[in-house]
Amino acid sequence: MSTTIDRVKAAREAASAGLDSARDMDRQDALAPMRGLFALPAGEIYLDGNSLGAMPASVGPAMAEALSEGWAKDLIRSWNGRNWHMLPVTVGDRLAPLMGAKAGEVLAADSTSVNLYKVFCAAMRLRPDRTGVISERNNFPTDIHILQGAIANVFPQATMALADDDDESVLSLLGPDTAVVCLSQVNYRTGRLRDMARVTRAIHDAGALVIWDLCHSLGALPIDLNGCNADFAVGCSYKYMNGGPGAPAWLFVASRHLASAGNPLTGWQGHAAPFAFEVDFAPSATIEKFRVGTPPVLSYLPLLESLAVFERTDMPALRAKSLKLTGYFMELADEKLARHGLKVITPRNEAERGSQVALTHDEGWPIMQALIACGVVGDFRAPNILRFGFTPLYVGFEDVWGAAATLEAIMESSLWREPRFAERKLVT
Amino acid sequence: MSTTIDRVKAAREAASAGLDSARDMDRQDALAPMRGLFALPAGEIYLDGNSLGAMPASVGPAMAEALSEGWAKDLIRSWNGRNWHMLPVTVGDRLAPLMGAKAGEVLAADSTSVNLYKVFCAAMRLRPDRTGVISERNNFPTDIHILQGAIANVFPQATMALADDDDESVLSLLGPDTAVVCLSQVNYRTGRLRDMARVTRAIHDAGALVIWDLCHSLGALPIDLNGCNADFAVGCSYKYMNGGPGAPAWLFVASRHLASAGNPLTGWQGHAAPFAFEVDFAPSATIEKFRVGTPPVLSYLPLLESLAVFERTDMPALRAKSLKLTGYFMELADEKLARHGLKVITPRNEAERGSQVALTHDEGWPIMQALIACGVVGDFRAPNILRFGFTPLYVGFEDVWGAAATLEAIMESSLWREPRFAERKLVT
Repeated sequence: MSTTIDRVKAAREAASAGLDSARDMDRQDALAPMRGLFALPAGEIYLDGNSLGAMPASVGPAMAEALSEGWAKDLIRSWNGRNWHMLPVTVGDRLAPLMGAKAGEVLAADSTSVNLYKVFCAAMRLRPDRTGVISERNNFPTDIHILQGAIANVFPQATMALADDDDESVLSLLGPDTAVVCLSQVNYRTGRLRDMARVTRAIHDAGALVIWDLCHSLGALPIDLNGCNADFAVGCSYKYMNGGPGAPAWLFVASRHLASAGNPLTGWQGHAAPFAFEVDFAPSATIEKFRVGTPPVLSYLPLLESLAVFERTDMPALRAKSLKLTGYFMELADEKLARHGLKVITPRNEAERGSQVALTHDEGWPIMQALIACGVVGDFRAPNILRFGFTPLYVGFEDVWGAAATLEAIMESSLWREPRFAERKLVT
Repeated sequence: MSTTIDRVKAAREAASAGLDSARDMDRQDALAPMRGLFALPAGEIYLDGNSLGAMPASVGPAMAEALSEGWAKDLIRSWNGRNWHMLPVTVGDRLAPLMGAKAGEVLAADSTSVNLYKVFCAAMRLRPDRTGVISERNNFPTDIHILQGAIANVFPQATMALADDDDESVLSLLGPDTAVVCLSQVNYRTGRLRDMARVTRAIHDAGALVIWDLCHSLGALPIDLNGCNADFAVGCSYKYMNGGPGAPAWLFVASRHLASAGNPLTGWQGHAAPFAFEVDFAPSATIEKFRVGTPPVLSYLPLLESLAVFERTDMPALRAKSLKLTGYFMELADEKLARHGLKVITPRNEAERGSQVALTHDEGWPIMQALIACGVVGDFRAPNILRFGFTPLYVGFEDVWGAAATLEAIMESSLWREPRFAERKLVT
């Protein structure tokens, strides 16, 4: 069977029309050298950075040093000596500029889901006379699920309405009883980008508060939470932020809400004086009020390496390249893949596009497994979506060309019909 | 000033009466070779494993391999290929035997504080007609704080009473309205060990449910949650479990409660089918219903190495050595330290003692800082407690002798009165 894969690869090489122009684009790409800062698998095209970002090359030595010197040798002293205790704040302060937030407005801690629970409860308490919650049907499920659990347990009088993908659908649900709206800036399935400024304004006009989920946008495009007057935000740091598998998530609370917003998870690290070991909980006056328990230190360390990479470039330059990469892939999809039934569902309009491209096909699962077997890594989302993430820090135009050409060869050879590609995996 | 420290060290060496017998005890200690499995700092005596456990020597290579092969090379595929997705369950299953639990009753995830919020809410829902909550005044503060926050936000009709350190005090608070009791098995300040079987029985006799916090006992002594018929438990894995700074915490739900206990933090990873991406939350039927978000993978990996160490020994043997270590230290404290005003507050009775010894002194802070400067690492808890943790896996009898002799020399030399030792640190 591997010979079939070899034939597909050979077909991709042979079909070199267009490859020269891809290589030209790489030569003209000022960001191309950034790729050298990542440890990427040899001989593969990795287009799944919207699920798990690649590893910055400096992570290995940094982690080895932290283990041998920080944990093994300095032991308990590292909580002070290496400032491990303050990682949620110091990492939050370095994430802040990437989302248009100020130092002191972002805390890196827990998971996106836990953080959403915190800020949703906080936001609901700020609108005590209202009961309406709005999210979106195609939001990443955990957002809807967390809201469902918080409503059932904490705000039983509240009800949730779910909008469709378009911004108009959200706006049409707003009303005088709307308390909180929770939306993803970029949709995890389609890659559609919402108009954060316009939607936030409409939510505020209705007297409601907004929580933005930036899981699929942070690190991929410029974000201006304060410029849009956003209230709260949450997100992860293991996708475009390249923080590593299960890297700490984060939350944003606009400084104007910090005094009044309350965290229901009143753990000791959110106390005003955690090491006074007092009986009564008294929240910190700062963003630390949203801390809960002891931070998983080792999972923060790769994110420090990734932030150092981001601090060597800027988001407008990354965004410009990202749009070129996704635009080029859609162009190649029209040219090579449409006739095989692979349909682009990501918006063509740049203002509505994140940094991923989604194709649909009824046989999306085996097609994606065949593609991965041929060295092009994307992923699949039920029921029929093939997702391709284009991380401008380490994806080049030749990668884009190679992915499209490989997928074309797979469709032409029917490789994906081999029974082994039908096998389902636990994590898709 | 360092010459003062050198003189203290020399005094310790000179005061070698008793050192020979300590060395004899080490020679007779069948567990002594386990120390070689840890990377310990050279020339120091580490007695703070009850705060941050030492690093298993195999962590360095295991982490390096996971980074270079798991993250950098296999990338997204490691969620399946390395079973990263199931780490909360597989690690939980390996923790289970250490606490007398069955596979499927323990989940390794989040922080102790977040886990306590989950199981406290679950337990309260199982006693819907009762409003009484009991904890203990000297519980680790986060336990009290989390209960305070859950009561304020989720169970506003509930009220909490706080018991004193002794078991009788807890029992005297039980009544027909008691819903849930949350206690630490070993007190973080005094090292006092509660009678889990007796207290659990009394709580059940009152018709209430118990949550045991095992942060200061798991890995240090045999625990039999199911033998005691316990309902819920929580704990961390970075103290006696040696899982690394901020290693994932865990929760235990007795299998008889699993079907009816509900997690208020309904994140996608607790869904019955997380990768079906469904709109409505439907909890998993297993312990996975207590999962929330994506697990911080890198923070789980050292715990796997530590569990492999535990699986080479057994808890009764570790407990026997632990009691010898703490007993020997108290004997030396009586002999060398009592006359300097350092008073043992840890119970002498073995059945009431965990694996730490606490001394009190009004000048505890500078004394502990001077001791650390002399190479003996314990810690300080306000207002006046010097804590010494004796991890039987890597602490020997010569360490115990050396710690007592150094502390004696510090008291005799008044080294601790040097102004530099008065400086406070962020994390104590």
